[in-house]
Amino acid sequence: MFVLVNLKTYPCDPIAVATAAADVADDTGVRVGIAPQAADIARVAETGVETWAQHVDPIDYGSNTGHTLAETAAEAGATGTLINHSEHRLKLADIDGSVRAAERADLETCVCANNPDQIGAATALGPDSVAVEPPELIGGDVSVATADPDIVTDAVEAAGAVDESVDVFCGAGISTGDDVDAAGDLGATGVLLASGVAKADDPRAVLEDLVDPVA
Amino acid sequence: MFVLVNLKTYPCDPIAVATAAADVADDTGVRVGIAPQAADIARVAETGVETWAQHVDPIDYGSNTGHTLAETAAEAGATGTLINHSEHRLKLADIDGSVRAAERADLETCVCANNPDQIGAATALGPDSVAVEPPELIGGDVSVATADPDIVTDAVEAAGAVDESVDVFCGAGISTGDDVDAAGDLGATGVLLASGVAKADDPRAVLEDLVDPVA
Amino acid sequence: MFVLVNLKTYPCDPIAVATAAADVADDTGVRVGIAPQAADIARVAETGVETWAQHVDPIDYGSNTGHTLAETAAEAGATGTLINHSEHRLKLADIDGSVRAAERADLETCVCANNPDQIGAATALGPDSVAVEPPELIGGDVSVATADPDIVTDAVEAAGAVDESVDVFCGAGISTGDDVDAAGDLGATGVLLASGVAKADDPRAVLEDLVDPVA
Amino acid sequence: MFVLVNLKTYPCDPIAVATAAADVADDTGVRVGIAPQAADIARVAETGVETWAQHVDPIDYGSNTGHTLAETAAEAGATGTLINHSEHRLKLADIDGSVRAAERADLETCVCANNPDQIGAATALGPDSVAVEPPELIGGDVSVATADPDIVTDAVEAAGAVDESVDVFCGAGISTGDDVDAAGDLGATGVLLASGVAKADDPRAVLEDLVDPVA
Repeated sequence: MFVLVNLKTYPCDPIAVATAAADVADDTGVRVGIAPQAADIARVAETGVETWAQHVDPIDYGSNTGHTLAETAAEAGATGTLINHSEHRLKLADIDGSVRAAERADLETCVCANNPDQIGAATALGPDSVAVEPPELIGGDVSVATADPDIVTDAVEAAGAVDESVDVFCGAGISTGDDVDAAGDLGATGVLLASGVAKADDPRAVLEDLVDPVA
Repeated sequence: MFVLVNLKTYPCDPIAVATAAADVADDTGVRVGIAPQAADIARVAETGVETWAQHVDPIDYGSNTGHTLAETAAEAGATGTLINHSEHRLKLADIDGSVRAAERADLETCVCANNPDQIGAATALGPDSVAVEPPELIGGDVSVATADPDIVTDAVEAAGAVDESVDVFCGAGISTGDDVDAAGDLGATGVLLASGVAKADDPRAVLEDLVDPVA
Repeated sequence: MFVLVNLKTYPCDPIAVATAAADVADDTGVRVGIAPQAADIARVAETGVETWAQHVDPIDYGSNTGHTLAETAAEAGATGTLINHSEHRLKLADIDGSVRAAERADLETCVCANNPDQIGAATALGPDSVAVEPPELIGGDVSVATADPDIVTDAVEAAGAVDESVDVFCGAGISTGDDVDAAGDLGATGVLLASGVAKADDPRAVLEDLVDPVA
Repeated sequence: MFVLVNLKTYPCDPIAVATAAADVADDTGVRVGIAPQAADIARVAETGVETWAQHVDPIDYGSNTGHTLAETAAEAGATGTLINHSEHRLKLADIDGSVRAAERADLETCVCANNPDQIGAATALGPDSVAVEPPELIGGDVSVATADPDIVTDAVEAAGAVDESVDVFCGAGISTGDDVDAAGDLGATGVLLASGVAKADDPRAVLEDLVDPVA
C-alpha cells in the first residue's frame, strides 16, 4: 500500500510533514510519499522522504515559460508525479504528453480521473498507476469505507479491462486507517490524501494511524 | 464506409457541398455526411444530407454562454458530432462529458485522437467511433495509402483491445478514392475529409471519385 | 438604453422570446436584442429582432473545427456579439482577437468583465461597449438598484478613464424596470438580462415591464 | 534599465547563469534579474541574484494542485514575477487574479502582451510593469534596434495613456548591447532576454556586452 500526501498549496510546513512521513515510513516499512509544490520539491526531497511532483507539463527542454519540466522536477529530487489531478485537469493529448515526459525523466506516473470510463481511458495511456477521484468523495466527509464500494471496485475493473499491469489508487474519501484498509480490500494499491495530513496539528500521529492497518 | 466532410470555417458554400454530398450518397448508396459550423447546421440539414456537428460541449440545459448544446445541434438537424478534433482538443473529463451530452441528445459520436494510446483512451469512453489523426498526415500531402500502414492498423488494434464494438475512422491523409480504399483495407470503417472536398471547384466530382472504390 | 437578452442554453423557445422582443421594441421604440445559441441565430434573426451572437472566436476563415467564425454569425443574421462573458472567459490575447474578428464582420462588440480594473482593460481593446458583471450580482437575487451603486459607477469611471467613446452596460443584477432605470442613472447605456426573460412564462410582459421606465 | 533573463525550460545550468548575472550586476551597477523554473527558484536566489518567477497562478492558499502560489515563490526567494508570457497566456480575469496574488506576496509584477491595445489592457490591471512582445520580434533574428521603432513607442504610448506610473519593458528583439540601448531610447525601462544569455557558452561575456551601453 502506497500512501501519498498531496500538500497542494496549503499553508503548512512542508518540511515538518515530510520529516514525519519519512520517519513513519522508516518505522513501519509502509511506503509513504509527499507531493509538495514545485518550488518546494528540493527541500522536501532533502528530508529523505519519497517526493512526488503535483504535475508535470507535456513539454521537453526548450522555449516554455512558467511550466514544470519533468527533468527539472526529477533533478530537484522528485521520483514520481501526479498528472491530471481534479484540480489540474488536462487535455487528453496533454495527459499523454505528460506521461511520456515523466517517463523520459524516470518519474513514476499516477494519472487521476473521476469515474470508471475515464479511469479506463487513463489506463490506456500506459501510466504506472491511475487514481480514481469520485466526485461524491472529493473534499467531502464521506469515507470510502462507508460509501458505495462500487465506486472503487468499478474503477479497478475498468483499469484491469484495459491493462492489468496498471495499479489503481483511491484518490478521495481517505482520512483514517480504516479507510486505507477498506481501499485495499476494494483492490486499491495506493491512496491519496491531502488536508487530513497536511493541515493536521500532529501530522506524524495522523500518518501513524493511517498506516497502522497496513503496517 | 462512411465519408464525413468537415467544412471547418472554410470560405465555401455549405449548401452547394451539402447538396452534392446528398446527391452522391443517393446515387451510390455510400454513406456521406457533412459537418458544417453550428450556425449552418439547420440549412445544411435541410438539403437532406446526413449532418454532423463539429463539436458539442460537455454541458446540459442551463447557464452556459457561447457553447454548443447537444440538444440544440440535434434540433437544428444534426444526427452526429465530432468530439476532440485536433483543432478543438478537450480535457479528458470534458471528452467524457461531451460523449455523454451527445448520447443524451441521440447524436452519434466520433472522438478524434492522434496516436494509438490516445485512441485506446478515447475508445474507453464509449463513443460510437474514434478517428485517428496521425500528426504525420494532418494537413499534409502524405496519403494514408502510401504512408506507413501501421499508423492506421495500430489504431484499429488499440481500439479493438479496449472495445471491439467501437468503429475506427481514418481522420487524415485522405484525398482520393485510392486513399478511401486503402483506409478500408487497414480496418477503418470511415474517413474524415476537409479541404479536398470543401474547397474543391467541383465538390460533386471530388466526392464521386472518393466513393467510387467503395460504391 | 439597450436591453440585451442572453438566451444561454436555456430550455426556452427562442422564437417566442425573439418575437416578443421584436414586438416590444417596435411598440416602445426601446432597443431590445436577443442573443441565442449559434445554431439558432438564423431563425431568431428571421423574426426581425436585433440578434447577437453569444461569442465569436479569435479566428479567420480556415482550418478551425467547432469554432464560431464572426462572418458566419453575421451571415446568419447577427449584428453584434458578446465576448468574454463570465461563462466563457477568454485569454487577453483572444479577447483582442475576437474583437478584431467581430469588427472584420461588422458585428457590434460588447466585452464582459467583472470589476473596474478588468473593465478598464477591456475598454483598452477598443470594443463598442463593455459590460460589467460584478460577481456579487451574477446569478443572485441582489438587484443593481439596491446594491452598492459603486459597483457600476466605478466601472463607468474605469472605462471612461481609458476611452470615453466606449459604452458601459450593466451585465448583472437586472430583473425589473426599476433596475433598468437605476442602471441608467449610474451611467450604463445598456443592460444584459438572461433567465428573467428567457425562462418567463410571459416574456412579453416581462420585457414590457423592463423597458417601461425608459420607453 | 532592468535586464531580466528568462531561463524558460532551457537545458542550461541555472546556477552558472545566475552567478554570472549577480557578478555583472555587482560589477556594473546595472539591475540584472534571472527568472528560473519554479523548482529552481530557491537555489538561484541563493546566488544572490535578483530572482523572478516565470509565472504565478491566480490562487490563494488552499486546495490547488500543480499550481504556483505567489507566496511560495516569494518564500523560495523570488522578488518578482512575469505574468501572461507569450508562452503562458492567461485569461483576462486570471491576469488580474495573478497580479493581485503577486501583490499580496510582495512580488514585483510584469505583465506581458503583444501589441499596443493589449499593452493598454495589461496596464489597466495595475501591474508594476508591462512587457511588449511584438510577434514580429519573438524568437526571430530581427533586432528591436533595426525593426520598425513604432513597435515599442506605440506600446509606451498605449501604456502611458492608461497609467503613466507603469513601466514598459521590451520583451523581444534584444540580443546585443545596441538593442538594449535602442530599447531605452524608445522609452523602455527594462528588457527581457532568454536564449541569447541562457544558452550562451559564456553567459558572463554576453551579459557584460548587453549592459555595457547602460552601465
